[in-house]
Amino acid sequence: MSQTSPPDAVEISFHVRFAETDQMGIVHHTNYIIWFEESRSAYMRARGTSYTAFAADGLELAVSKVQARYLAPARYDRLVTVCCWVEQMQSRKMRFSYRIYDTASGQTLVTGFTDHICITPEGRVARIPDKWRHRLKLEN
Amino acid sequence: MSQTSPPDAVEISFHVRFAETDQMGIVHHTNYIIWFEESRSAYMRARGTSYTAFAADGLELAVSKVQARYLAPARYDRLVTVCCWVEQMQSRKMRFSYRIYDTASGQTLVTGFTDHICITPEGRVARIPDKWRHRLKLEN
Amino acid sequence: MSQTSPPDAVEISFHVRFAETDQMGIVHHTNYIIWFEESRSAYMRARGTSYTAFAADGLELAVSKVQARYLAPARYDRLVTVCCWVEQMQSRKMRFSYRIYDTASGQTLVTGFTDHICITPEGRVARIPDKWRHRLKLEN
Amino acid sequence: MSQTSPPDAVEISFHVRFAETDQMGIVHHTNYIIWFEESRSAYMRARGTSYTAFAADGLELAVSKVQARYLAPARYDRLVTVCCWVEQMQSRKMRFSYRIYDTASGQTLVTGFTDHICITPEGRVARIPDKWRHRLKLEN
Repeated sequence: MSQTSPPDAVEISFHVRFAETDQMGIVHHTNYIIWFEESRSAYMRARGTSYTAFAADGLELAVSKVQARYLAPARYDRLVTVCCWVEQMQSRKMRFSYRIYDTASGQTLVTGFTDHICITPEGRVARIPDKWRHRLKLEN
Repeated sequence: MSQTSPPDAVEISFHVRFAETDQMGIVHHTNYIIWFEESRSAYMRARGTSYTAFAADGLELAVSKVQARYLAPARYDRLVTVCCWVEQMQSRKMRFSYRIYDTASGQTLVTGFTDHICITPEGRVARIPDKWRHRLKLEN
Repeated sequence: MSQTSPPDAVEISFHVRFAETDQMGIVHHTNYIIWFEESRSAYMRARGTSYTAFAADGLELAVSKVQARYLAPARYDRLVTVCCWVEQMQSRKMRFSYRIYDTASGQTLVTGFTDHICITPEGRVARIPDKWRHRLKLEN
Repeated sequence: MSQTSPPDAVEISFHVRFAETDQMGIVHHTNYIIWFEESRSAYMRARGTSYTAFAADGLELAVSKVQARYLAPARYDRLVTVCCWVEQMQSRKMRFSYRIYDTASGQTLVTGFTDHICITPEGRVARIPDKWRHRLKLEN
């Protein structure tokens, strides 16, 4: 676990897929952002819930912004770990932060965040329900 | 136009995207199958219709089988052409065939087909409506 | 393990990623073929080797054909298993076969195969080296 | 052309692919970043050059940072336009900016930028050669 990630961070590890590489011989930069997303799914599972359960309440957490910084490349077949945590929780918006590192060496490869706004099926911005605020973020 | 493709074939051309390459320096083999799909969309547009219009009639053309043969690789930034036509039209099923070639040289890169079955939203196999059989395939 | 898969089959399980879905609410049909590929990587790892080691011997196993049959859809966040084995081993060519199933229910979702030819960096078809034939396929 | 994009901006238009949607019925957020990249390729082509020519000079423009803001979703089969321009040109680094909009309505869907550093094959940061600074950015 990273020194900089909070105690409620969730980690997943997996091997880099061949299809995730590009002709520079490294992982294509968009795939790290797919890994961000998969770590959010794992975060939900670790909290005993899921995006599907959130959607069942008639709401969505739409991605409103994404940022990634590329420090070192991941390569095919390496084991990588994605560390994911809730950085900010506001009434209608939340931020997940991420650190991707090489599992064996611990070297940080990519860091980033995604902002999400809570919206109704009609696309109107809505308040994140209290039960979900608690499910998604431990109040210390 | 290929000698082997029928007169009602539809063609689209575009540049190979960098993200479509893999670490072998060529297009990853799954991307040709995405190009197959995009040429089906173009086929629909050329007939003055769309998958969305088909779905609006409460039906889907689900992919039941795909086959691709890889003859030569496509490379980043090259202009490629995908030629698409209806190979078979049955009551509940249809087959699209494809030929992907290098636009400049005419060299065939990949050939293949996809089978589609007509299904209802509940997943039951259904007859392809007559109006759609005519829209999708000219009867000669 | 499937009844139909041989004893040397290798299995991997993982959760379906959100990015792998399409607007039909199911996994896009090309992603199963990426899973085929990832199960080949796992097959290599289970044999104590890797594609990288094969490439280090100056050869490639290029995909020459792929076929997939879609029986039932996979959905977001479900745990799926891909079972992979060597179906045929010839002097210059080999076939991997696959069965993808829902891990919890055992329901088969997709079956398929990929053919691979051994080629040199210059693109010439070559014999699969004996040591690799043994590494990749147990002779019973 | 956007009011906010400079006169040397380059635009490309294409139809949204079915494979680019996700189960929310809209384009998955990572695909806009692939479109950013494809507009960079188009930018190079519009300048009479290519990434391949840059690589042939023994250098790479590695992505060091990406940011995207999602304002409205793109949908399957819609025609979209990506507008791309060089926002900053420094000695070892450059920034491309982007605006993606619905071609028919002009509505902005996504904005963003990518930062690129010039690196040698050994991964060392290098100066962007003068001839490339001129090719990539008109000095007004």
